[in-house]
Amino acid sequence: MFAVDPVNHLNDEQIQHKINQKTKPLGALGSLESLAKQIAQVQLTEPFNNRQKLAINQPAMLVFAGDHGIANHGVSIAPSAVTQQMVNNFASGGAAINVFCRQMGLNLEVIDCGMLTPSDHPKVTDHRLGAGTQAIHQKQAMDLLAVKDGFSFANDLVQRHFDSGCNLIALGEMGIGNTSSAAAIMAAMLKLDVKECVGRGTGIDDESFALKRELLTVAMNLHRDKIHDPVNVLACLGGFEIVQMTGAILAASEKKMLVVIDGFIATAAALVAVALHPSARDYLIFAHQSDEQGHPKMLQALDAKPLLSLGLRLGEGTGAALSLPMIQAAVNFYNDMASFDKAGVSNVV
Amino acid sequence: MFAVDPVNHLNDEQIQHKINQKTKPLGALGSLESLAKQIAQVQLTEPFNNRQKLAINQPAMLVFAGDHGIANHGVSIAPSAVTQQMVNNFASGGAAINVFCRQMGLNLEVIDCGMLTPSDHPKVTDHRLGAGTQAIHQKQAMDLLAVKDGFSFANDLVQRHFDSGCNLIALGEMGIGNTSSAAAIMAAMLKLDVKECVGRGTGIDDESFALKRELLTVAMNLHRDKIHDPVNVLACLGGFEIVQMTGAILAASEKKMLVVIDGFIATAAALVAVALHPSARDYLIFAHQSDEQGHPKMLQALDAKPLLSLGLRLGEGTGAALSLPMIQAAVNFYNDMASFDKAGVSNVV
Repeated sequence: MFAVDPVNHLNDEQIQHKINQKTKPLGALGSLESLAKQIAQVQLTEPFNNRQKLAINQPAMLVFAGDHGIANHGVSIAPSAVTQQMVNNFASGGAAINVFCRQMGLNLEVIDCGMLTPSDHPKVTDHRLGAGTQAIHQKQAMDLLAVKDGFSFANDLVQRHFDSGCNLIALGEMGIGNTSSAAAIMAAMLKLDVKECVGRGTGIDDESFALKRELLTVAMNLHRDKIHDPVNVLACLGGFEIVQMTGAILAASEKKMLVVIDGFIATAAALVAVALHPSARDYLIFAHQSDEQGHPKMLQALDAKPLLSLGLRLGEGTGAALSLPMIQAAVNFYNDMASFDKAGVSNVV
Repeated sequence: MFAVDPVNHLNDEQIQHKINQKTKPLGALGSLESLAKQIAQVQLTEPFNNRQKLAINQPAMLVFAGDHGIANHGVSIAPSAVTQQMVNNFASGGAAINVFCRQMGLNLEVIDCGMLTPSDHPKVTDHRLGAGTQAIHQKQAMDLLAVKDGFSFANDLVQRHFDSGCNLIALGEMGIGNTSSAAAIMAAMLKLDVKECVGRGTGIDDESFALKRELLTVAMNLHRDKIHDPVNVLACLGGFEIVQMTGAILAASEKKMLVVIDGFIATAAALVAVALHPSARDYLIFAHQSDEQGHPKMLQALDAKPLLSLGLRLGEGTGAALSLPMIQAAVNFYNDMASFDKAGVSNVV
């Protein structure tokens, strides 16, 4: 359904040279240098022109919400009703993601991918695939048609932002129970014991944690014969929001937009997207290392070094929003720092 | 010379309660939560009022430049002339710190604390304490009067920003050779072998690194009998810029301003400032962990967990500038996020 091209490597040497000629010791801007190089690879699609600037235009934060059947079985600190309550909070502007989007200049769109009950808030986009997934330790989360429809919804959404001039999307989510789904997806994609992938989400106690491990072990056994390709992994273990995040990553990569990946859930979607289209990795910026225990291993599998590590475990896209100034800083130093020549500074390195 | 009061702890419980009532799981905003609490302790000096907002007003980046006698002895990748060249680059707006200050809305002031030759740029503040320090492996860097004058200059500078409505200063520096001075200060203040404190600065080779370790060992032995109090540590081992950074930390703490500490050099100044006035620690925000090898141990000694870790080793205040959006995010979530009550979200934690 998507056609994702790798980034252009023809300009790599000239991009690196331009970065090295900035008035600073070689490599002294650390991660911002590799980030600037990545953005340049994505955006400088023509033969290299030293004057061509990088830009972040109309950046959008897409927050995907969905409910999970497994949440009804004691694996979360909160009941599924909180998904809806928090979506209303997003729509009213009171959540952390609202505060950070306002600060960073991100256009926020909240998408109902399939909460238990539809959002009644007019600002919430209706991309519902159902009324919550099935409990994955009992049944397949959804059928294959739902995955296909989810990709199609995501494609429409990204196309709309692209058409309005956006060249960067950041992915956030809300869904009580979705660390369970993400841990199961991680186990399937990385072929790990699910026990290595399960964490405490937003902070469950020892008893719920033991139960979460147990139910997810049951889920992995139940779907063992089906989860050998990424689309079936989504159908068996996914959430409606994770399906649409995966689709959004692929749609944006196809359009050569940058994609900022938030925490554990968004990274699970990235694992699936990159398995489907390895070139999608070129467009991904990893915002932060979350406090969820499986996250470092996921990042490692994607060869990703996240920009921030603030001990966040909130989701909503908060880490992605907070990383935007770092991304803008990479763009700005590439565009605006003087070269040794121009500034009359001795290049001693 | 300075009178630094600790922050007010009377409101601690109410501040924490306000943070805990925000629509997020307990502690889910990680380091931003402790940062918001610290800022509230600094700024909410009256009896607690739930409506009182935190604010960052007229934030200023103060970049202190100075030259070091030891730089002439093969311990740096660049000659001392580069200090002046980079200061001119700051004054012309072409350096990394200019780019990041413009992006983050920081007012940049560059201070000549004692470069080899005076800056001829009218935008550079003249707070010269000499024409470079003495080489610390041969002599005392400066006399005690220079330390006193440096504190006085710093006090005037901070007062001027305070009077114009500034309540946050960030500290940056430029000075070829200043990682040598900072490593020596670190060794003296933390009573460590200087070899544990020396790093490669902006990137010296093995030979220069061996020489740097050797000369600093000589320096520590030379001043052994004098470096038992912070002011003598500055006089024997300091740089003119490090003296004025120390003074700026104390002057700002006295005025209950927030102080953002950049990397290795600024943290060395913080070590001295906190040794002189332990309450100054309450006002310090540590921006980033630099790539300089001694930095983690310094931060540990100050019980500091830096906000960013981007592998920067540039100085200039770049890490401090990049951290400003995180500081603003802490302020904004404290001010603007809805409480569980107000948003109609179940508080399940």
